[in-house]
Amino acid sequence: MATVADISLSAAINLLSSLAFLLAFAILRLQPFNDRVYFPKWYLKGVRGSPTGSNVVKKFVNLDFRTYIRFLNWMPAALHMPEPELIDHAGLDSAVYIRIYLLGFKIFAPITVLAFMVLVPVNWTGKTLETPRAAKDLTFSNIDKISVSNIPFGSNKFWVHIGMSYIFSFWTCYSLYKEYKNITGMRLRFLASERRRPDQFTVLVRNVPPDPDESVSEHIEHFFYVNHPDHYLMHQVVYNANKLASIVAQKKNLINWYVYYQNKFERDPSTRPTTRTGFMGILGTKVDAIDYYTSVIDDLSKQEAAERENVVKDPNAVVPAAFVSFKTRWGAAVCAQTQQTSDPTIWLTEWAPEPRDVVWENLAIPYFELNFRRLLMSVSLFFLTFFFMIPIAFVQSLANIEAIKKVFPFLMPIIEKPSIKSFVQGFLPGLALKIFLMFLPRFLMTMSKVEGFTSLSSLDRRSASKYYLFILINVFLGSVITGTAFQQLQQFIDLPSTEFTKTVGSTIPMKATFFITYIMVDGWSGIAGEILRLSSLITFHLKNTFLVKTEQDRENAMNPGSLEFATSEPRIQLYFMLGHVYAPITPILLPFIVVFFAFAYMIFRHQIINVYNQQYESGAAFWPDVHRRVIMGLVISQILLMGLLSTRGSENTTLVLIAQPILTIWFHRYCKGLFESAFVKFPLEDAMVKDTLERAVEPKLNLRVYLQNAYVHPVFNGGEFEKPEIIDDEEDNPLIQTKRTTHLSSKPESDNETGSY
Amino acid sequence: MATVADISLSAAINLLSSLAFLLAFAILRLQPFNDRVYFPKWYLKGVRGSPTGSNVVKKFVNLDFRTYIRFLNWMPAALHMPEPELIDHAGLDSAVYIRIYLLGFKIFAPITVLAFMVLVPVNWTGKTLETPRAAKDLTFSNIDKISVSNIPFGSNKFWVHIGMSYIFSFWTCYSLYKEYKNITGMRLRFLASERRRPDQFTVLVRNVPPDPDESVSEHIEHFFYVNHPDHYLMHQVVYNANKLASIVAQKKNLINWYVYYQNKFERDPSTRPTTRTGFMGILGTKVDAIDYYTSVIDDLSKQEAAERENVVKDPNAVVPAAFVSFKTRWGAAVCAQTQQTSDPTIWLTEWAPEPRDVVWENLAIPYFELNFRRLLMSVSLFFLTFFFMIPIAFVQSLANIEAIKKVFPFLMPIIEKPSIKSFVQGFLPGLALKIFLMFLPRFLMTMSKVEGFTSLSSLDRRSASKYYLFILINVFLGSVITGTAFQQLQQFIDLPSTEFTKTVGSTIPMKATFFITYIMVDGWSGIAGEILRLSSLITFHLKNTFLVKTEQDRENAMNPGSLEFATSEPRIQLYFMLGHVYAPITPILLPFIVVFFAFAYMIFRHQIINVYNQQYESGAAFWPDVHRRVIMGLVISQILLMGLLSTRGSENTTLVLIAQPILTIWFHRYCKGLFESAFVKFPLEDAMVKDTLERAVEPKLNLRVYLQNAYVHPVFNGGEFEKPEIIDDEEDNPLIQTKRTTHLSSKPESDNETGSY
Repeated sequence: MATVADISLSAAINLLSSLAFLLAFAILRLQPFNDRVYFPKWYLKGVRGSPTGSNVVKKFVNLDFRTYIRFLNWMPAALHMPEPELIDHAGLDSAVYIRIYLLGFKIFAPITVLAFMVLVPVNWTGKTLETPRAAKDLTFSNIDKISVSNIPFGSNKFWVHIGMSYIFSFWTCYSLYKEYKNITGMRLRFLASERRRPDQFTVLVRNVPPDPDESVSEHIEHFFYVNHPDHYLMHQVVYNANKLASIVAQKKNLINWYVYYQNKFERDPSTRPTTRTGFMGILGTKVDAIDYYTSVIDDLSKQEAAERENVVKDPNAVVPAAFVSFKTRWGAAVCAQTQQTSDPTIWLTEWAPEPRDVVWENLAIPYFELNFRRLLMSVSLFFLTFFFMIPIAFVQSLANIEAIKKVFPFLMPIIEKPSIKSFVQGFLPGLALKIFLMFLPRFLMTMSKVEGFTSLSSLDRRSASKYYLFILINVFLGSVITGTAFQQLQQFIDLPSTEFTKTVGSTIPMKATFFITYIMVDGWSGIAGEILRLSSLITFHLKNTFLVKTEQDRENAMNPGSLEFATSEPRIQLYFMLGHVYAPITPILLPFIVVFFAFAYMIFRHQIINVYNQQYESGAAFWPDVHRRVIMGLVISQILLMGLLSTRGSENTTLVLIAQPILTIWFHRYCKGLFESAFVKFPLEDAMVKDTLERAVEPKLNLRVYLQNAYVHPVFNGGEFEKPEIIDDEEDNPLIQTKRTTHLSSKPESDNETGSY
Repeated sequence: MATVADISLSAAINLLSSLAFLLAFAILRLQPFNDRVYFPKWYLKGVRGSPTGSNVVKKFVNLDFRTYIRFLNWMPAALHMPEPELIDHAGLDSAVYIRIYLLGFKIFAPITVLAFMVLVPVNWTGKTLETPRAAKDLTFSNIDKISVSNIPFGSNKFWVHIGMSYIFSFWTCYSLYKEYKNITGMRLRFLASERRRPDQFTVLVRNVPPDPDESVSEHIEHFFYVNHPDHYLMHQVVYNANKLASIVAQKKNLINWYVYYQNKFERDPSTRPTTRTGFMGILGTKVDAIDYYTSVIDDLSKQEAAERENVVKDPNAVVPAAFVSFKTRWGAAVCAQTQQTSDPTIWLTEWAPEPRDVVWENLAIPYFELNFRRLLMSVSLFFLTFFFMIPIAFVQSLANIEAIKKVFPFLMPIIEKPSIKSFVQGFLPGLALKIFLMFLPRFLMTMSKVEGFTSLSSLDRRSASKYYLFILINVFLGSVITGTAFQQLQQFIDLPSTEFTKTVGSTIPMKATFFITYIMVDGWSGIAGEILRLSSLITFHLKNTFLVKTEQDRENAMNPGSLEFATSEPRIQLYFMLGHVYAPITPILLPFIVVFFAFAYMIFRHQIINVYNQQYESGAAFWPDVHRRVIMGLVISQILLMGLLSTRGSENTTLVLIAQPILTIWFHRYCKGLFESAFVKFPLEDAMVKDTLERAVEPKLNLRVYLQNAYVHPVFNGGEFEKPEIIDDEEDNPLIQTKRTTHLSSKPESDNETGSY
């Protein structure tokens, strides 16, 4: 058990490293040659200069020392942009994402104050740990004196903790309710004020049944002419262009190499660069690089042209799915929400994702296969979560010194050296685990992809759920019970269910210092490292040196990155859970969490303004998931508190505490009913309002032309994969901005919350 | 543990009593004066004579002895009616309901054959119970020799049981799948071939928000004119006529009494009957009965007229709900399935129930209250299920001899007699429980009503779920673990979760004989008693004697009853579960279940043809519930088998067995996705087909007139509460019967199944 001194030391180290990161960032960002790493968003927006605007004088290094003095002034700048502008600049997804941190701050700041005012004095006067018997017990420190461990067995003071737990839960639910309401309002206003977009008129139709007499396209047309006679406008079939897409991607890669050698040759015209034709340019015969790549690219271009023609002409390349567009938003809203035929496995309709959000390869999975894939992935997720240690342990057992000696005997003299040996022994076993954890989000994303979701945004949301489960079981419970998830599972099965919560609950106070350290390392230094963007910095300069010829190339060399919802949101949830678990038990942990939320809010606000470029815009469709997971954390904390108190001689409190999770779950269901449909359904009234307005403003709009090429596989659209060109096609004369406030936001209480809006 | 002789005796007794019931029924049904008790359905249909048709000669007693000889010929007669005619005659709900019994027969008949061919020999040769040690153990009987108890500890023979369990599960799932598909097809054909009905065009709109400037009616009209401009036709507001309805009901009751005294006076004109004005005609001053009731009824009539006017004129009597009708079925289908505004708590639309199916008093519950009520009822259900023994034990402790002596000392001499004393002591404690169990379905129904469902059919379905839970925990688990549900709950909490299934699993073989007896008493004799309709017989003759004056009165005196879905379906589910639990363990139980299903199928087929009058027609909307509960029983049986085998030295089989419930649950989800939407959604294609046909056949139909009074509170409709007059208003020239087969039924494999259709 760490003492106050240990914690202080750790805090000092982490504060210093955070400060070092921030300092490095402050210096690097002021150098003009890093401008594209730290302000790519502005380049993408077309506002070329960095936001400060005056530093373009010198080309590479900033010599204006006055700017170094105010090295932290990006912080107020990040907070300065008002929310409506932020939404306009970075999109609703990003603006709402950083509100998760704000929500954490809003929840835990008052809880911290209250806990320090009430619980700390109560715990301090508990005096259990000051008795001689306890004093001898060296596992207790000063931190425990202000935790629940200091309360005597069976004391009445536990009622204070129970009362506070109720207050904390109530405050959390209240904040969650307000935030859900607020974000629902933001989403509705966002959707209402949006410009005309192809997906507003379009429905994704899947599982079109085969017809012996008609092609897929004809069949679709006839079906919708019959069943939506007044509203059907047109449709766009989906081609199976996966092969073509891979050719295009391959070609793009080769062009990169071609440019690289071209540049090399231009800088040093004396020797023509050479390469080898085999594996990765290392094996095979030596050839002239520029000629080689020119010929290979020519070959691929021919292949591409043939395949392109093939896809368009071959009727079998049309998959049984299509994007069907309607004359009005009302018509599309109706079609997306209704069932078309009595067989629910065919003619499935759902609101079309944005064109750039579509996962093209998943559009044509048959119904049974889809179900089977989901079963398979559920089972896999279970095994991944509970048994991932088995293959890693196996790899670890192979990757030891003895094994290395056997396989690479020539390394013997090196690794026999004591310093290197200890390094290898200390480092190797962890390596397999580190690599696994690094690739875990990608595994999970692949699993979600296999499950057949049709939009990137739903893939992200789904992967986040999986990752949350993994973190909950392997990081949180794993740290508390200290054992592998598989051992926990065994415990969970073998112990009575009450016993399990008791075991976990009673271990929790002892783990407080561990989690405090974790928060400082992962939450403070980790977040500070995020702003430095070290890997992007290096990649950009490498690319800039070797590949960039034109401004356009430099543009492409930027990697603005984006909010990785699938991995970062579940991590935030861990902080929510830690806060809730420790709030009534060891309140000393709370300030660390509050600092994390405030700091992370600032950092990410800066990042979404200056750096990240969003991949898609889902209109904050992830909020129901965030809400649900916060509630889950809260319920887990309530159950663990029950377990803890029942080991402290307060069994009679169980009845009082059991109402808490029930009420919380009910609250969740209530909120779900109240707000969730705003995130999954499409009210007809709102569609009607936009239709009517549009008809009044642009009576002669030719929607057919507007939608003509909206949902074409990106590979047909200039050959650039994953480039949201279509979105940029939007008209510049938008629809009148509807200032109409929704029912929700017109109520007075929400105005307080959305004051900045 | 009962021996084979015990079981045989019990079987003989139950067979005899069943036979006695059937005999009594056979004799009573042939008497013309019982005709209205045993063939009310035909009277309601207007086909007056009993189906045999020749017995109307003698007025009271049937003297044609030849008919007595063929006293069982109702059985083939019941099976004779082909299914399409049955649907036409008794409705789809009833026709599908009896298919539950048929499904049970189809599932368990082959399982029984297989179990007797494979498992019985395997168990018989197990020989554990023939070892001297076991032979001394008196708790084993011959029945156990063919149960799994006869297999030695850790034997490899258990693999046979596991294999059979997989085969049984597979066969059950296959049958369930075929049946679900078949019933989905039946429902779709039924809906497609239905005549024009008001509810096809109508949507129930609830939670109409208040508007400061407009009345509810105007607000609704404006809203739908704006948001469904092409489809909105008209609407009907809902009045809060609860008070009026109670006046009408009171008046009807008084009229009954008036008629009773009138009859009495007519039969004996010498003395005018008298009554007392106080409590139930027992206390208070003595008055002339006919004059008294005439004046009271006059008073009530005036009150009724005043209230009637009041309701129609008072704007506050209009509740914020309405039945909105559309020009086409397509328009109604769209409105029912879509969300109207961005606030999901207002303008809630759902497909309107049939007029006779509406629960009028539940139409106006606000959103929050509805949620709160559901929470309250869930908690109540939990307490009712687990703690119902507490108040009953309390009542029982009061209702003993000593307490009676104290309260009614004058009874002392009587109850001190040994025979009476022992009767009271044996009878009283059970009485409280019996009364509770009798009223339980009504409690549950009331609870469902409080939850705010808007149709009788959904109330029935909801109550069935509650009752199933109660039976599962208190009858099934209660019999197996022999303890109150509360003690089970404690065990469940205190034991490790595996231990609980082990305990239950290992007790199961020992309870086989108990359940065999239970099946015979409840399933054989109970069902045979059902056909006798003893209580209806008595009530009818009492009413006939005292209240009936006209043919119309006699019509009213008939109480055809109906299938009590809420209570009888959960009971069938118990048989499904028993069958599944015991199939791999004690196959001797299976024949009893098969006989039950076959016998009940016949009885209830007879009843729905000749007796029951359905209250509403939901188009077999309950099937997803039935399917889900059979699956639940199957999963429980699979888990219990796992528990049992792990106590028999076959722990290593757990991994093989655990896949079973996972696959079964996946199968359930798969079926749900495949078929459930046919029971909850309304495909646009089908609506369009009917609309188009109708437009072609009756181009001049005035829908407005047709729907004018469809959804008027029944109290305004001739003052008769709960009489489905509106339904009879249907045109006699129906729409062309669409012979169009759905996608589902056009596939070849379903044709085998629906051969009789």
